[in-house]
Amino acid sequence: MGKATKELSAREVFARNLRRARRLKDLSQEQLGLEAGLSRAYVSSIELGERNVSVDNMGLLANALNVPLRDLVDPDKFRGLD
Amino acid sequence: MGKATKELSAREVFARNLRRARRLKDLSQEQLGLEAGLSRAYVSSIELGERNVSVDNMGLLANALNVPLRDLVDPDKFRGLD
Repeated sequence: MGKATKELSAREVFARNLRRARRLKDLSQEQLGLEAGLSRAYVSSIELGERNVSVDNMGLLANALNVPLRDLVDPDKFRGLD
Repeated sequence: MGKATKELSAREVFARNLRRARRLKDLSQEQLGLEAGLSRAYVSSIELGERNVSVDNMGLLANALNVPLRDLVDPDKFRGLD
């Protein structure tokens, strides 16, 4: 029952991986936002899957976390964390 | 002189990889657009790096091409093609 993990949409994968990668770096949403030049509220809404985030902002967030963007859209990365 | 390939922005990598992946599949911009539910003009502008494409549309395009989205944002994929 329920969808397999691999069935997550691109938005859902990015939302989940962003949160997990941020936590791995021990950053708050506010700290990540400051680093990326985005607001805490915007980071929060992305992590909740509420925002249809753009490629430019995806790049800013990946750079701020110092992870390759490909990892943030990879359903097999950051699995089983949190 | 000039930026190294690895310095391409996320938008530039996606634009380049989308075009190369589409050509590998022998699809026209119109065919890809039809498959993804997007217009030919929109696909064209994404490939030119003119559009700040959203994660939802990135997912639609990756699905239409039957490639993982992570490959379309990976600077080391589809290199040296075209």
